[in-house]
Amino acid sequence: MTLKAAILGASGYTGAELVRILATHPRIEIAALSADRKAGQGYAEVFPHLRHLKLPALVRMEEIDFSAIDLVFCALPHGLSQPLVGQLPESVKIVDLGADFRLRDPAEYLKWYGLDHAAPEIQPQAVYGLTEFYRDQIRGARLVAGTGCNAATVQFALRPLIGSGLIDLDDIICDLKNGVSGAGRSLKENMLFAERSEDVAGYSQGGKHRHLGEFDQEFSLLAGRPVQIQFTPHLVPVNRGILASCYLKGEAQAVHAALTAAYADEPFVVVLPFGQLPAMAHVQGSNFCHIGVTGDRISGRTLVVSTLDNLCKGSSGQAVQNANLMLGLPETEGLMLAPIFP
Amino acid sequence: MTLKAAILGASGYTGAELVRILATHPRIEIAALSADRKAGQGYAEVFPHLRHLKLPALVRMEEIDFSAIDLVFCALPHGLSQPLVGQLPESVKIVDLGADFRLRDPAEYLKWYGLDHAAPEIQPQAVYGLTEFYRDQIRGARLVAGTGCNAATVQFALRPLIGSGLIDLDDIICDLKNGVSGAGRSLKENMLFAERSEDVAGYSQGGKHRHLGEFDQEFSLLAGRPVQIQFTPHLVPVNRGILASCYLKGEAQAVHAALTAAYADEPFVVVLPFGQLPAMAHVQGSNFCHIGVTGDRISGRTLVVSTLDNLCKGSSGQAVQNANLMLGLPETEGLMLAPIFP
Amino acid sequence: MTLKAAILGASGYTGAELVRILATHPRIEIAALSADRKAGQGYAEVFPHLRHLKLPALVRMEEIDFSAIDLVFCALPHGLSQPLVGQLPESVKIVDLGADFRLRDPAEYLKWYGLDHAAPEIQPQAVYGLTEFYRDQIRGARLVAGTGCNAATVQFALRPLIGSGLIDLDDIICDLKNGVSGAGRSLKENMLFAERSEDVAGYSQGGKHRHLGEFDQEFSLLAGRPVQIQFTPHLVPVNRGILASCYLKGEAQAVHAALTAAYADEPFVVVLPFGQLPAMAHVQGSNFCHIGVTGDRISGRTLVVSTLDNLCKGSSGQAVQNANLMLGLPETEGLMLAPIFP
Amino acid sequence: MTLKAAILGASGYTGAELVRILATHPRIEIAALSADRKAGQGYAEVFPHLRHLKLPALVRMEEIDFSAIDLVFCALPHGLSQPLVGQLPESVKIVDLGADFRLRDPAEYLKWYGLDHAAPEIQPQAVYGLTEFYRDQIRGARLVAGTGCNAATVQFALRPLIGSGLIDLDDIICDLKNGVSGAGRSLKENMLFAERSEDVAGYSQGGKHRHLGEFDQEFSLLAGRPVQIQFTPHLVPVNRGILASCYLKGEAQAVHAALTAAYADEPFVVVLPFGQLPAMAHVQGSNFCHIGVTGDRISGRTLVVSTLDNLCKGSSGQAVQNANLMLGLPETEGLMLAPIFP
Repeated sequence: MTLKAAILGASGYTGAELVRILATHPRIEIAALSADRKAGQGYAEVFPHLRHLKLPALVRMEEIDFSAIDLVFCALPHGLSQPLVGQLPESVKIVDLGADFRLRDPAEYLKWYGLDHAAPEIQPQAVYGLTEFYRDQIRGARLVAGTGCNAATVQFALRPLIGSGLIDLDDIICDLKNGVSGAGRSLKENMLFAERSEDVAGYSQGGKHRHLGEFDQEFSLLAGRPVQIQFTPHLVPVNRGILASCYLKGEAQAVHAALTAAYADEPFVVVLPFGQLPAMAHVQGSNFCHIGVTGDRISGRTLVVSTLDNLCKGSSGQAVQNANLMLGLPETEGLMLAPIFP
Repeated sequence: MTLKAAILGASGYTGAELVRILATHPRIEIAALSADRKAGQGYAEVFPHLRHLKLPALVRMEEIDFSAIDLVFCALPHGLSQPLVGQLPESVKIVDLGADFRLRDPAEYLKWYGLDHAAPEIQPQAVYGLTEFYRDQIRGARLVAGTGCNAATVQFALRPLIGSGLIDLDDIICDLKNGVSGAGRSLKENMLFAERSEDVAGYSQGGKHRHLGEFDQEFSLLAGRPVQIQFTPHLVPVNRGILASCYLKGEAQAVHAALTAAYADEPFVVVLPFGQLPAMAHVQGSNFCHIGVTGDRISGRTLVVSTLDNLCKGSSGQAVQNANLMLGLPETEGLMLAPIFP
Repeated sequence: MTLKAAILGASGYTGAELVRILATHPRIEIAALSADRKAGQGYAEVFPHLRHLKLPALVRMEEIDFSAIDLVFCALPHGLSQPLVGQLPESVKIVDLGADFRLRDPAEYLKWYGLDHAAPEIQPQAVYGLTEFYRDQIRGARLVAGTGCNAATVQFALRPLIGSGLIDLDDIICDLKNGVSGAGRSLKENMLFAERSEDVAGYSQGGKHRHLGEFDQEFSLLAGRPVQIQFTPHLVPVNRGILASCYLKGEAQAVHAALTAAYADEPFVVVLPFGQLPAMAHVQGSNFCHIGVTGDRISGRTLVVSTLDNLCKGSSGQAVQNANLMLGLPETEGLMLAPIFP
Repeated sequence: MTLKAAILGASGYTGAELVRILATHPRIEIAALSADRKAGQGYAEVFPHLRHLKLPALVRMEEIDFSAIDLVFCALPHGLSQPLVGQLPESVKIVDLGADFRLRDPAEYLKWYGLDHAAPEIQPQAVYGLTEFYRDQIRGARLVAGTGCNAATVQFALRPLIGSGLIDLDDIICDLKNGVSGAGRSLKENMLFAERSEDVAGYSQGGKHRHLGEFDQEFSLLAGRPVQIQFTPHLVPVNRGILASCYLKGEAQAVHAALTAAYADEPFVVVLPFGQLPAMAHVQGSNFCHIGVTGDRISGRTLVVSTLDNLCKGSSGQAVQNANLMLGLPETEGLMLAPIFP
């Protein structure tokens, strides 16, 4: 039997990526697509690369009959999912791809997003959507909060290390290289081709990036005490991909062993042989995360590099992985798409 | 039941693309991979993006037990498939991705490739592999000769028009924009990133490109008289994709109608509404070909633009499409992968 | 003695390119920079790559004392130069980089730009700014109308041929590959990096591009009868550069000889040896135009390929070249900057 | 009077960049160009973007009459400059762009480059070519050893801090993003466009990069005790540019003040206002280095980001800057070319 999904906010890149993945998913069918400003348009007008698919036209959210929907993917701008969830029928499961339910503490939401939480009473139901670490809770959840794409990349590199005693929790430096699709399809001068091509530049420097809220929450929870990392993203002229270089104080071989053990049975997270570093081009278009570990000539230094496709494993692929669990399907269903290279 | 395929010459980009497609093909299993110079290496060493797959290691061709193989994909350099085919068991079906069997007349092969045909006695068995136009013959073939990637792109634009009387056969000009992966993974100075990035330049100008042999053969056959087109490819800084702008003398609306009718039932060839032009980015990573038709302020002029992914629909996707037919499988099996955008 | 220039509309790419060129120009000094929306900002805030220069801050146009200005470069949006020119002191010379004075016939301006000409009484004073062909008139002009960037690229390829009798004037097809900076710095969804990267697509197809107005005017004037060309631009993922492939009916060797002779003494226009095609990467950042000519296996066919940097030779470099003439300076002053490669 | 320069190894990217810069240098003329394998070719055959220049043809080094040469730029592969210098007339000044004379201690040369030093008796004459810090010695030198491009980028960020007491010398982490032209024009599979486009990946990880020899030498000298930094370069799909993100332990405002003071009078090194980070695209094609400093929400953390064009300020521009000093010319002569953007 096919399960029916609605995608809200389907006119952005994460919406299109959900449709791309679900196009060959054997069990989930796209039953509704919403996009307020583009309501009325056929999906192929907005994303011509998907014109081979028979898809419902874009409608306004209010036009969707949610009683016929099993699962909703919310790919809405920040702040719009919180008021929405309470209005959906109880029978509908929800994967939110935005930031609205990622932070357990509404005060943290206010701090990082500048908005009062509009549904603090629902927040406790939300499960943090980093599948590999919240699998059991996700299976039973009605509402899953997808992680930030940077947050996913770095957590795959660091989570198994936080409680391990292998690294210095007070000296974690993460330097990220970010493909531009993470900025979405909205119009900004610095996202024009002529501005980004042939350029690399940092942004949100100095501890201002919103995904720090997720790091603080998750790493502190794991460590049982406050942990803050230093984190600087840099835009690179690549469509898809995040590559996080994490500089740690700890023994590299032990770190490698811990990561290898942690992900030994994971279908989507691959730890490379010691000393090899991953490449962004090797995960694009897929739900895989590649992790490499190396030491340094300076003893006690470890570099962990993690890379994934921000639109897929960092967002829409993760969302489908979570949806599979919530719907009782095999976790990898529809997600074994190989990366595309070159 | 699963059918077993061998890929010969698996260390090039078309080899990797075959593996990518077959990774999620429900009926064809990769049983052997050969690459002479890289024999002994694991496939993930050569193409780390495919490291999640359980694949046989690369071997030398001689090490393969072809009696256990149902189908061979030959992705070998020019000239190596001709002597090989006669040595394979009769039970093995063959899809050749190279040029060795594309030209029916060995004299034409000598003319365009500078080599004597090494298996002229086998040539008559070869079916030209443009699936949409040789479907019935491909179903019964033992040997299918995959088309050139440029040859596929332009033929999708022009074949339905050649015998139609709608266009002037003596005045066809095709200007192509070609992604760099068509040049393969071999080392050439002009294929370095620093040489191709930020550049566009024509090559093989003046009627020297080898794919002209295919155009001459196919269009003359269709027309029942010699037809020669003018054809200039240009390298563009894109990994995948060919976009062919075909300048024709004829009425655009009639041309559009003829193409729309010709491809009405095709799963992979899409004709856009009149006046719209296709974009390379809308077919990358997929087996689709998008075609657009427009007229001009000068009456009697038609522009047909056709685009496909050279590694997929132009080569490895086409090969799997043909293999499906040869093996009695549904033609689209494993090939409905959606394009990846952005 | 230094001459003083003002740049109006200095916050766009052509404005920045003017500043880049004038930065090392020995005789022209930048005395004023205007940009209405960004007035009050330092130029380095808008274009940080020019922060090493001591430049006046951006002001509103009304704040400029034009009595102290020798020459004005107008890099304003279409329609704004026409009403302005009449308000400037007679002593000020003007190079307009926009389209406002390119078309001699106000009816043509209305046709292609959709606006009534606001200064038809001034139009007759304007000299068309393709320096190599209007040199003497430019020397004496008060107002020079810079050409469109596509218009320049194609005219360099074709002008010496139009009156030569060497080619069929009724069958000229120009296929252009266009870098994205030609679209300027304004915000459009299709100009985002993620939309243009890895893509090639035609636009303004079917005879709708505004630069056709210039072609019609100039080629008809040269031929002494109406001439219309077929012209299709394609966006390529390159910052700077236009490469025009012009398909002609005529003898290639004769065409090559005519172009070689026409440009023999030109400092900025280079005709390559017969059979060689130019590359966009070989002119970027410079005021040069490279032209190549080849024949075809089909006799009577000629391909002329012309390439230049749209921001430099196609716009701001051309503007400085014209300014040099208007100010009595050597034509090449400040313009012998070598292309930057890679 | 014009001074005469020879460029040895002129067929690589740094050779071409020297020619580009010298093309508009008012005092230095290119009198000879050598490239062993391409001897006999015209320079425009090797670098068509420079075809507008009247240049001597490429010859073998032995064919050059060095008695007529004032200055030699050696852009040779590692190991070839050492035996050469002793053979040149004493009257010839030499700027070596390679690594042969960068390391004062021949044992360090052996360690990092795997070669015995072939001219240890000449090594003491060599002055390390980071102009801003060795200006006086360079003025009087016969032999200047240009720095590594990464070495230059990071030293501009860190040198004023090493002896300042402002930062912890035992905890310096430098994460670099490197354009591909630094790898030169030699053929390597991982430098093909299709391999580098859409990719970011680290290399020479774990303290193996050769430029560490320069860091060790210079920083230890400045500190008066051994200093080792952690340094990881990453290839980004950009032609030119290095952006170094340097993670330091120290107070950001004090660091910013120290850097601002250090470079206050430098024509080519610019420190941005506190809190702003530089962009690679803002220095391309120029001899400028932009430096930004920011703090972090974690107190005591400082991020210094430095960017320059590896071919220009990181190599050939630096070489001309040094040549100017050695020849008694103004240091900035010919080098005030503005960056090219976009």
